[in-house]
Amino acid sequence: MEPKENGSELGQKIIDGPTNPMVTPLLNDLYQFTMAYAYWKAGKHNERSVFDLYFRKNPFGGEYTVFAGLEECVKFLANFKLTDEEIDFVQECLPGSEEAFCDYLRGLDCSDVEVYAIPEGSVVFPKVPLMRVEGPVGVVQLLETPFLNLVNFASLVATNAARHRFVAGKSKSLLEFGARRAQGPDGAISASKYCYLGGFDATSNVAAGKLFGIPLRGTHSHAYVSSFMSTDEIVDKVLRSADGKTTCEDFVSHVQTWLKKIQYSPSLSGIFSETNQSELAAFTSYALAFPKTFLALVDTYDVMKSGIPNFCAVALALNDFGYKALGIRLDSGDLAYLSREARNFFCTVERELKVPGFGKMVVTASNDLNEETIDALNKQGHEVDAFGIGTYLVTCYSQAALGCVFKLVEINNQPRIKLSEDVTKVSIPCKKRSYRLYGKEGYPLVDIMTGENEPPPKVGERLLCRHPFNESKRAYVVPQRVEELLKCYWRGSADEAREVLPPLKEIRDRCIKQLENMRPDHMRRLNPTPYKVSVSAKLYDFIHFLWLNEAPVGELQ
Amino acid sequence: MEPKENGSELGQKIIDGPTNPMVTPLLNDLYQFTMAYAYWKAGKHNERSVFDLYFRKNPFGGEYTVFAGLEECVKFLANFKLTDEEIDFVQECLPGSEEAFCDYLRGLDCSDVEVYAIPEGSVVFPKVPLMRVEGPVGVVQLLETPFLNLVNFASLVATNAARHRFVAGKSKSLLEFGARRAQGPDGAISASKYCYLGGFDATSNVAAGKLFGIPLRGTHSHAYVSSFMSTDEIVDKVLRSADGKTTCEDFVSHVQTWLKKIQYSPSLSGIFSETNQSELAAFTSYALAFPKTFLALVDTYDVMKSGIPNFCAVALALNDFGYKALGIRLDSGDLAYLSREARNFFCTVERELKVPGFGKMVVTASNDLNEETIDALNKQGHEVDAFGIGTYLVTCYSQAALGCVFKLVEINNQPRIKLSEDVTKVSIPCKKRSYRLYGKEGYPLVDIMTGENEPPPKVGERLLCRHPFNESKRAYVVPQRVEELLKCYWRGSADEAREVLPPLKEIRDRCIKQLENMRPDHMRRLNPTPYKVSVSAKLYDFIHFLWLNEAPVGELQ
Repeated sequence: MEPKENGSELGQKIIDGPTNPMVTPLLNDLYQFTMAYAYWKAGKHNERSVFDLYFRKNPFGGEYTVFAGLEECVKFLANFKLTDEEIDFVQECLPGSEEAFCDYLRGLDCSDVEVYAIPEGSVVFPKVPLMRVEGPVGVVQLLETPFLNLVNFASLVATNAARHRFVAGKSKSLLEFGARRAQGPDGAISASKYCYLGGFDATSNVAAGKLFGIPLRGTHSHAYVSSFMSTDEIVDKVLRSADGKTTCEDFVSHVQTWLKKIQYSPSLSGIFSETNQSELAAFTSYALAFPKTFLALVDTYDVMKSGIPNFCAVALALNDFGYKALGIRLDSGDLAYLSREARNFFCTVERELKVPGFGKMVVTASNDLNEETIDALNKQGHEVDAFGIGTYLVTCYSQAALGCVFKLVEINNQPRIKLSEDVTKVSIPCKKRSYRLYGKEGYPLVDIMTGENEPPPKVGERLLCRHPFNESKRAYVVPQRVEELLKCYWRGSADEAREVLPPLKEIRDRCIKQLENMRPDHMRRLNPTPYKVSVSAKLYDFIHFLWLNEAPVGELQ
Repeated sequence: MEPKENGSELGQKIIDGPTNPMVTPLLNDLYQFTMAYAYWKAGKHNERSVFDLYFRKNPFGGEYTVFAGLEECVKFLANFKLTDEEIDFVQECLPGSEEAFCDYLRGLDCSDVEVYAIPEGSVVFPKVPLMRVEGPVGVVQLLETPFLNLVNFASLVATNAARHRFVAGKSKSLLEFGARRAQGPDGAISASKYCYLGGFDATSNVAAGKLFGIPLRGTHSHAYVSSFMSTDEIVDKVLRSADGKTTCEDFVSHVQTWLKKIQYSPSLSGIFSETNQSELAAFTSYALAFPKTFLALVDTYDVMKSGIPNFCAVALALNDFGYKALGIRLDSGDLAYLSREARNFFCTVERELKVPGFGKMVVTASNDLNEETIDALNKQGHEVDAFGIGTYLVTCYSQAALGCVFKLVEINNQPRIKLSEDVTKVSIPCKKRSYRLYGKEGYPLVDIMTGENEPPPKVGERLLCRHPFNESKRAYVVPQRVEELLKCYWRGSADEAREVLPPLKEIRDRCIKQLENMRPDHMRRLNPTPYKVSVSAKLYDFIHFLWLNEAPVGELQ
């Protein structure tokens, strides 16, 4: 469960291994090893290559993506080493391969690899490299599958979380409740991590809380409620008051008394008659265990006829001994309606029974929530304070995969291009730099990619930005601020300083800040404006020169 | 990477821990621990409870599901133990909890738990318990989240694999290529495992190959092709013949000679002119590394104008030295058309250049394939022999989650029910047995659940099967064969023999056999017939008695 201890040393820093110990060099497609062998056999394995990791389309019908997964990639890289057992297995997989290849694999590490990346938690856009990975082609090729695996889902689920935050609004609590429905154990744990990164407040996943310091939330389930038959089961009925000064000898009867009071109070009478006694027993018992943090799931039998009155009876009884109940959770039914009815009930209790603050009870809603249902709740009007979101969030149900790719853009200083009949799949060749240009209002205006050696864009200087493939799409931009996007996260043999890996909380803060700083029309759910991604005029010309050079000319007969 | 060694001993058997070492008791929703505390505080933690794990609806619009994940659950259970560090963390999460609770957690294991389950790899249906878990409510509650996590995705992706097999047909090779797009590292590894279980033939995922003995497949990527500039790069041009008797000193020239022959052969002339030389270099070099298993990706530049002729030149050159090339992979474009064109080309080569068997070259297709695209390819007519399927398969893109739940059905010998305004969400109470009844034609006819102590259905004896909630849906069945579904996989303190955990290959065989034995109308993609799931007359009556008993009666005013 703990991160690996065998971090490699670099300068003074030791970097732990990836969170999941299953992330080893064998978490790879076989063809990375067959290629490594073929490169090695051809004496090409040490040729200096440059690969770009990028995606082609923003997910969820939106126009932005949150980049996540970088830290895990660096942790993987820093500890990249095949064990003898792994090497034996690779050799078995490549029948006929020469013994000396094993020696090559044995000596393999990432000391000659450089990784430049956009900081984790940044808002990013299609085609712009999230990571540029340089190094001997034999080893860099072996990073492709693990890097894609570690970035694809991380970025997808962080983006999904950010989108849920956008629709829920800043003032609501967002709780990730997905562990049981996630795609496997670290589908759960990494979803918890990256949902927090993308702006969630807490998770139900204890392992993720422990690993990453994410706040934890949770109370009880329907099973807890139905495990009780009646209040007779409660043996220890004693409750010490919050200040420790008094003791209630029979909290159960005290609750029953309050239930009667509610039942016969003028404005509440008639809403319900007898409440479910097993539910009342469960709530009472739960309150005895957690008097300071009492929060009850109220829909096991019937929200308004049983759950809410039972909850109120227990909360009022607690109140007499100096405890403030936290609130309720609704997990089924018409959440907009029930949350409003519950709020009314609480306010009536506050008014009629003169309990100040009772109306402000926290209402948490769960039950298959997603962007659409929260949006619908907003439109209907609701009284929900906190959303517990599971399945749709952590499995990214509305789009379960992000299509990041890892493409060779240069080898031996020769730019390379990958063609395709589908123009959106043509890669942008050359070792590149990329910049984010900001406008007068402080919003990002456009991302631009240039060749490695082109002069950087300058503040106040007019610059032609071209669509990489559509020749008529061009714009002049006078940037008010220029931000170079790729920073060095792994220096290999290069001299440059390496960025430190910030704590998760800091990455989350960056993400929230960057999302807030986007022009609103890029962020809206319906028909958002695409953010512009461009290349310099020089790079544009070069792409198209190389394209014509590599594409065979057809013959029509 | 290796399964944990610290398996607990039970009888003579030691059961390894779960595949992913991150599967610990903390892979849990916090509320399982708050409930454990509340049960313990109320002295209820050792009450004997029975929980059913089941799902409510088949995924992917189908009418069947493959049950998977059981082995991992048993491995988890067998090694269930909280470490001191974990207990400290739980205590931190429950402020105000009593110290003695930690002692309880310290002593917790699954020696008093019993698990009955349908064998892994079985075809299963909604509402019928996949697992029945019995034991002290405190500990069984802590199994809910991990069990659901381990079963939900496993069953979903195994079902997805089975559906892909159904549409591709028995004769095709199905290869799982999803590691890079999966939902995290063990999203990848477990998808590989469960796709194999569901009927796939191989995976690209080396780690899964090593862990589970799944056959591995893979050749090279576009990057390998574009890493070459020209055949001048190939330094070592020597190829020893397959029988070791002759040596080709300049395999590169030999390939070039064949390329010219193809180009000027009467029926092929005109299809292409100059092919891409970097591609030719890459293929030649790859063939020198893997002469026995040459398979080339042919769409980096242009399939028909470059990739196929280059491949044929290399394959024909290999053939001269006793090597049979395997075939090609297509990763873009119109796969139906290109596979047919490629097949024509191969057959023409066989005929014109007199190379017997050349027309049978294996055509592998990849590129965002799924059930729909394979179905469309079938309708268009194609010449694909093997499908490489990634994203849509491993992320279960068309439905990213299965909604398995874990419901309390009995505690202290008292049946419990969970009500809901949505009738499909009402749980079926009681500790139950379930049976599959087979008809005259050998197909399964109906699954029936009964109370624990009802006599089992008998062969040849007429039996009333009732829909659990719809009173008018009833059928008499005379079973020709009766199969009890739940078998004991963990015996706790009970006397019953425990089923052994079969190897993956055996589970896969069971799955394939069961799928083949289903009545075809349940299996078809369009409007399949629902398989019938029922309860005994006695259980029906009891469900509805309990329901009325627990549901509050409304008051209309």
